[in-house]
Amino acid sequence: MTLITLTTDFGLHDHYVGVMKGVILSRAPEARIVDLSHAVHAHDVRQAAWLIAANYRYFPPGSIHVLIVDPGVGSGRRIIMLSVGEHYILAPDNGLLSLVVQEAHDDIKCFEVKRPDLYLKPLSQTFHGRDIFAPLAAYLAKGNSIYNIGPGLDPSRLVSLNLPSPVIDCDRKQIAGGVIDIDHFGNIITNIKTDHINKLAANPAEVLVTLGNRSLTGITASYDSVPAGRPLLILNSGSYLEIAVNQGRADDYFQIGPTAKILLQVG
Amino acid sequence: MTLITLTTDFGLHDHYVGVMKGVILSRAPEARIVDLSHAVHAHDVRQAAWLIAANYRYFPPGSIHVLIVDPGVGSGRRIIMLSVGEHYILAPDNGLLSLVVQEAHDDIKCFEVKRPDLYLKPLSQTFHGRDIFAPLAAYLAKGNSIYNIGPGLDPSRLVSLNLPSPVIDCDRKQIAGGVIDIDHFGNIITNIKTDHINKLAANPAEVLVTLGNRSLTGITASYDSVPAGRPLLILNSGSYLEIAVNQGRADDYFQIGPTAKILLQVG
Amino acid sequence: MTLITLTTDFGLHDHYVGVMKGVILSRAPEARIVDLSHAVHAHDVRQAAWLIAANYRYFPPGSIHVLIVDPGVGSGRRIIMLSVGEHYILAPDNGLLSLVVQEAHDDIKCFEVKRPDLYLKPLSQTFHGRDIFAPLAAYLAKGNSIYNIGPGLDPSRLVSLNLPSPVIDCDRKQIAGGVIDIDHFGNIITNIKTDHINKLAANPAEVLVTLGNRSLTGITASYDSVPAGRPLLILNSGSYLEIAVNQGRADDYFQIGPTAKILLQVG
Repeated sequence: MTLITLTTDFGLHDHYVGVMKGVILSRAPEARIVDLSHAVHAHDVRQAAWLIAANYRYFPPGSIHVLIVDPGVGSGRRIIMLSVGEHYILAPDNGLLSLVVQEAHDDIKCFEVKRPDLYLKPLSQTFHGRDIFAPLAAYLAKGNSIYNIGPGLDPSRLVSLNLPSPVIDCDRKQIAGGVIDIDHFGNIITNIKTDHINKLAANPAEVLVTLGNRSLTGITASYDSVPAGRPLLILNSGSYLEIAVNQGRADDYFQIGPTAKILLQVG
Repeated sequence: MTLITLTTDFGLHDHYVGVMKGVILSRAPEARIVDLSHAVHAHDVRQAAWLIAANYRYFPPGSIHVLIVDPGVGSGRRIIMLSVGEHYILAPDNGLLSLVVQEAHDDIKCFEVKRPDLYLKPLSQTFHGRDIFAPLAAYLAKGNSIYNIGPGLDPSRLVSLNLPSPVIDCDRKQIAGGVIDIDHFGNIITNIKTDHINKLAANPAEVLVTLGNRSLTGITASYDSVPAGRPLLILNSGSYLEIAVNQGRADDYFQIGPTAKILLQVG
Repeated sequence: MTLITLTTDFGLHDHYVGVMKGVILSRAPEARIVDLSHAVHAHDVRQAAWLIAANYRYFPPGSIHVLIVDPGVGSGRRIIMLSVGEHYILAPDNGLLSLVVQEAHDDIKCFEVKRPDLYLKPLSQTFHGRDIFAPLAAYLAKGNSIYNIGPGLDPSRLVSLNLPSPVIDCDRKQIAGGVIDIDHFGNIITNIKTDHINKLAANPAEVLVTLGNRSLTGITASYDSVPAGRPLLILNSGSYLEIAVNQGRADDYFQIGPTAKILLQVG
């Protein structure tokens, strides 16, 4: 009973997600399918790259993760199967795997998928989720060997995103970072991680964060450590520094977008 | 094969719901998971309390219902496991269980969850759905006894919401009520139930309902008992009085919001 | 292990979809359930008729498809079970089955559902998804014979939608069509199919499509065959002519809605 996760920018308006599940279950009736998210912004490879890197470890060993944000569908872009530790990820080769590869401490194997015999016929030019990825996921879910999926590929030859990392200045005791995502609650997720802050040997109470022309002092332990409607700093469930408002929306409060700069200093 | 339902204010934009399912299935691979709703308004404990009370009975006996609207996550608020009849409900102690307890005709047992050995490590301060609730649900789904989950608690000591009930005046043959929810179709769900109306011994055709400066007469048997675009009164699938517009939106038609007052009179 | 698909206009805001699944799994615990879409526009029978006709074949033989867009719920409208090839479809008799019947090359059998003994009691007037369709789907999922569901019915006696077909003029080498849907990505799906274009014996590079006061020439092989932000013609995964913008939204680009006219000419 293998688990397949789906992460796409397909949304839930259309039949796209449902039909992919139909094809998977037609070929691998025992597979379990979980939606990680179908609300990746349309064509936003970067957001999906972050989503999968941050979350694949929470699924059972042996899980097959299908990742489709694919503006190049129908063109010559390669399709990749990456194994990382005990997880398998299927994705077009457009940068979606960048962060997984960069952050992986486990053994990585990489293959270019070459199995047209498995694909749905006639193969469409616009929906490889249904015609290629679903059959591939089913093929792997049925226990077929990853070595049958295509020739090996050096992971360093995958298309790579240029993702901005926070700049840590230990001498000046500061970190210059940015915004990764704004979540459903309006929480602002920064790219500054607990590990980065620890390098400054900072007392959490003395951390000062500036965004736009406002500042916040002190990392708190829970959203309700400040009154409702007030802003706060917290280390979130992905070990990222998050800027939030207790029972409110930080994106509205600070009026900032995904390109905002975040400056963390130790006072 | 135990069923686990999820009711949250997490939305489907982020990875939150998918990751919870990953953790549940990592520990209880046989569990079935059904989303009741993830579109509870952010931090709206009252809406979720109503959702679960109105609907848990439609799931199989033995179901485990996970209920997370949790602005106090990371603080000292308790986590509760309630058993009601043959159903189990996991929720933070912030009022989410108020209506279930109030309306239960079945045997209720209540426990404070104290099983840090089951939680994910490191425990985050912002996502107990993943780190606490998912492992707990999996633990119960695997058939572990509810008596192993923590000490018993008197249900009357749970945090209780102050939910407005309709005021029934049998002498004047009227009921003063309010709005519980406005659904996807724009239907206005009132807190006036069939049982309340029956107390007035009313002929459904003679019921007069006033909201804002408009009135409607007569409870109808189906939406299409009036022409398309016209308003109507109907007793809905939860036995609540509903104000609807045939093939239209009652919230737009009446221009009222969730704080509107509803007056029902027998003519 | 039977698959049940759900296609409704219920949205995911409320408990409606979750509760249907609860009832199905209460009666057929082994059933698998897949959402095809719950984002059909409210009361839009035409959209749902197209969705199911275009997609049911992608699910495993033996699948049971539940189709609910039902403004006549609670009235006297019939409930239908259609078997088409190895698929079963449950729907109210309001036109939802029009396209399936019209396009079916397989053997069709049609029955009027008459099994009040299976329905939930008390039967609501507003939520037959829960009270009638879910129990029926579970009944079929458990392997009960379709011949037990009610009397046979001539499919030509079903309520039929008047769906506009494209008008093909082989002499003038042109097709006058319309818009079926605008998808999550803003792609404009027309009702002109590959088969229609083939009747004109057109070279794909010479096809000229006019919508509003703009034209596009040449059917391309992939979205990225034009620069980002530029419009294109493509044959999509349902074999429909689609008007798209590479990494953009065609609905915004062309500023047209669902009633727009599409003219295809061979240059």
